[in-house]
Amino acid sequence: MRMYDIIEKKRVGNELTAEEIRFFINEYCSGKIPDAQASALLMAICCNGMTMEETTELTLTMERSGDILDLSPIDGPTADKHSTGGVGDKTSLVVAPTAAAMGCKVAKMSGRGLGHTGGTLDKLESIPGMICEMSEDMFMQQVNKIGLAIVGQTGHLTPADGKLYALRDETATVMSKPLIASSIMSKKLAAGCKNIVLDVKYGSGAFMKTKEDAVELAEIMIGIGQKAGRRMTAVISSMEEPLGHNVGNSLEVIEAIQTLSGDGPRDLLELSTTLAGLMYSSCFDTPFEKAKELALETIRSGAAKDRLRLMVKAQRGDSNLVDHPECFETSRFTQVIRATQSGYVTNMDTEGIGLASCILGAGRETMDDAVDYSAGIQILKKTGEPVQVGDTLAILRTKRERSLRDAEDRYLSSLTISEEEPEKEPLIYKILEG
Amino acid sequence: MRMYDIIEKKRVGNELTAEEIRFFINEYCSGKIPDAQASALLMAICCNGMTMEETTELTLTMERSGDILDLSPIDGPTADKHSTGGVGDKTSLVVAPTAAAMGCKVAKMSGRGLGHTGGTLDKLESIPGMICEMSEDMFMQQVNKIGLAIVGQTGHLTPADGKLYALRDETATVMSKPLIASSIMSKKLAAGCKNIVLDVKYGSGAFMKTKEDAVELAEIMIGIGQKAGRRMTAVISSMEEPLGHNVGNSLEVIEAIQTLSGDGPRDLLELSTTLAGLMYSSCFDTPFEKAKELALETIRSGAAKDRLRLMVKAQRGDSNLVDHPECFETSRFTQVIRATQSGYVTNMDTEGIGLASCILGAGRETMDDAVDYSAGIQILKKTGEPVQVGDTLAILRTKRERSLRDAEDRYLSSLTISEEEPEKEPLIYKILEG
Repeated sequence: MRMYDIIEKKRVGNELTAEEIRFFINEYCSGKIPDAQASALLMAICCNGMTMEETTELTLTMERSGDILDLSPIDGPTADKHSTGGVGDKTSLVVAPTAAAMGCKVAKMSGRGLGHTGGTLDKLESIPGMICEMSEDMFMQQVNKIGLAIVGQTGHLTPADGKLYALRDETATVMSKPLIASSIMSKKLAAGCKNIVLDVKYGSGAFMKTKEDAVELAEIMIGIGQKAGRRMTAVISSMEEPLGHNVGNSLEVIEAIQTLSGDGPRDLLELSTTLAGLMYSSCFDTPFEKAKELALETIRSGAAKDRLRLMVKAQRGDSNLVDHPECFETSRFTQVIRATQSGYVTNMDTEGIGLASCILGAGRETMDDAVDYSAGIQILKKTGEPVQVGDTLAILRTKRERSLRDAEDRYLSSLTISEEEPEKEPLIYKILEG
Repeated sequence: MRMYDIIEKKRVGNELTAEEIRFFINEYCSGKIPDAQASALLMAICCNGMTMEETTELTLTMERSGDILDLSPIDGPTADKHSTGGVGDKTSLVVAPTAAAMGCKVAKMSGRGLGHTGGTLDKLESIPGMICEMSEDMFMQQVNKIGLAIVGQTGHLTPADGKLYALRDETATVMSKPLIASSIMSKKLAAGCKNIVLDVKYGSGAFMKTKEDAVELAEIMIGIGQKAGRRMTAVISSMEEPLGHNVGNSLEVIEAIQTLSGDGPRDLLELSTTLAGLMYSSCFDTPFEKAKELALETIRSGAAKDRLRLMVKAQRGDSNLVDHPECFETSRFTQVIRATQSGYVTNMDTEGIGLASCILGAGRETMDDAVDYSAGIQILKKTGEPVQVGDTLAILRTKRERSLRDAEDRYLSSLTISEEEPEKEPLIYKILEG
């Protein structure tokens, strides 16, 4: 078998066999195929796609490239949730404790933020003392004890995905549904949970720009998961504006705590109860509407917040902050952005807002960059809201005073204010049950 | 400017600017862009194409990447001929001396064979003593003196094409019309001739499998040449069967000499006089039909053969062989392939026949392989010819006895013999005058 022939086959748009896909992944990971050949194949896949069979084989081969977590020591139904990434998306911080309080075993591995989207690990680590690296044993013990743990990758999971993703990131071959789906699902499968709920975002702040693309991506991932014997559900949700009001690490933790305290923004509560409801309904075979109602009650009762406090304590974080989020360290410099025209916010370029938050120090351009946990944006006016000249549109927070100017420019150029009241799209477009 | 953004732009099918193309070529050649990024862009070009403007810019940038030959010391109109490559294609050996005898200044740079196609340099070097490397000055002196020289690349021409071609050859990104056109034309432009005649092949032995693809490739190359101020013409000719009867280096020189002696196969004579006619008509503004007639007369008179003899002498080859081709060294082992069924030869997989010749030692798999000059195939039955059981279909010649079996199998599997007489396509499909 020759890599040249495999590239050629995909270049002309033909389907690769399981053997060819395994040859590619295994030989590439063992260093026998040069980056140049691998990136040529990746680009051919970007341009010509992959069938469900090819995508599934690619996923399973990457899953098997490293350790596979055996969650059988965990009592009860294991559940995981994955978002394709967005701006202000702190749902994991609400959903995981809620689902855990409902009885799901939430054994969750998260990532760090890169580019305009944040990462759950960075958010958690904005809580002083919080430890997100632990051994497999500790991880399972914690899940057994309090029903949840959110950690970075333990052990040596999916090294093939790691190597391939680095190459895709270098060669502009990230944006391919089969490649995105196999990258996400190889990690989710290796992480071992039986019930997987996906939050696939579409819109100006998401990888997928349209609802149709998001549905297609979700369907591919559901198909892969089902072939691997997992229970799969997916929510297709809007990222046409940031989720909630706060963007930035500790700012998002604060908003998650407010939501768990019954005082959060409506969109975040709606998406979080939907996702926690789906996790419960998948774990316990309960009708979704009932499960969602239960999720809401779990939050209202304070049980979900209790779980978050337990998790922060178990992972050595300052759990006092869960009850006193006003005690989070704040940024030294703030700037209020005011409206210079009246009308309605008709459009938010969500990626632009995410980038404004990065400029302030909340994100990283490369994996080696340090993050300013308290930097970010509080958004006061979102799509559809009326605005008068002089109204506060947003508040920027940072440790780097000189970044305020650039961030303000970026924020303002991401906003459209017009005279006519816009029609607002619903937050949740669709729920796909596998 | 970032290479990432350039790849991304082509991945989604947009047109690159001249600056972006220059950035890519210049930075890649200076080692600042890794192979992985370059091959991703090449594959995106294979899949999504390039506009005429992009292709022209790519060609001109590669042309300017090294030395550019200044042919102004040559008196008279300079002419070059390029074939996209085929099996048994020895036309250069007939066309160049013929055009020179007609008054064109044929300053030709040729390549070596690779894969199933042969190269003019290898054929010439099968003449003992023949030297095809010379200085620029010597090259121009020879053209001024006897009207022709066929040499390898002198100096440091189009290094960008060299580097890019090696990468394309590794990453299965050869097969793209804009990339093929820019590779050929960058070399032709840098080689300096004012009048360029292209022989673009289609069919089972050619890069382009259909007439339509060949026409499209020819039109791109004509467009580039014209923008660079050259007079361009192109012949679209069939490679659905080998040209002439002989495949292999000295075997092809022998057939070229036979043709210049008035004793060659009809197809080779027809294509050669067409190409020489076009060179003359381009150089001297003469109607093509008249020029082609003149080419035929030039061969019949012996003037063309005289030019070949002069060239071989000038390049230190054994010119006695031009008058006594029977004195070429012959291969020790021969094998006659006989028909095992009667009917007509209805199809020849020309690439397969080229590969059979390679198996015998006439070609090379990598540029480091040595070539057996006397190895090859004499084809006695071509498409459309009637065949009786026991008739000789072909004779194989080689120094490596053990290769005969494989070569015979390959040859036979490249041939289709059926009962019904096939309709034979004309050799020349079209002539495109720029």
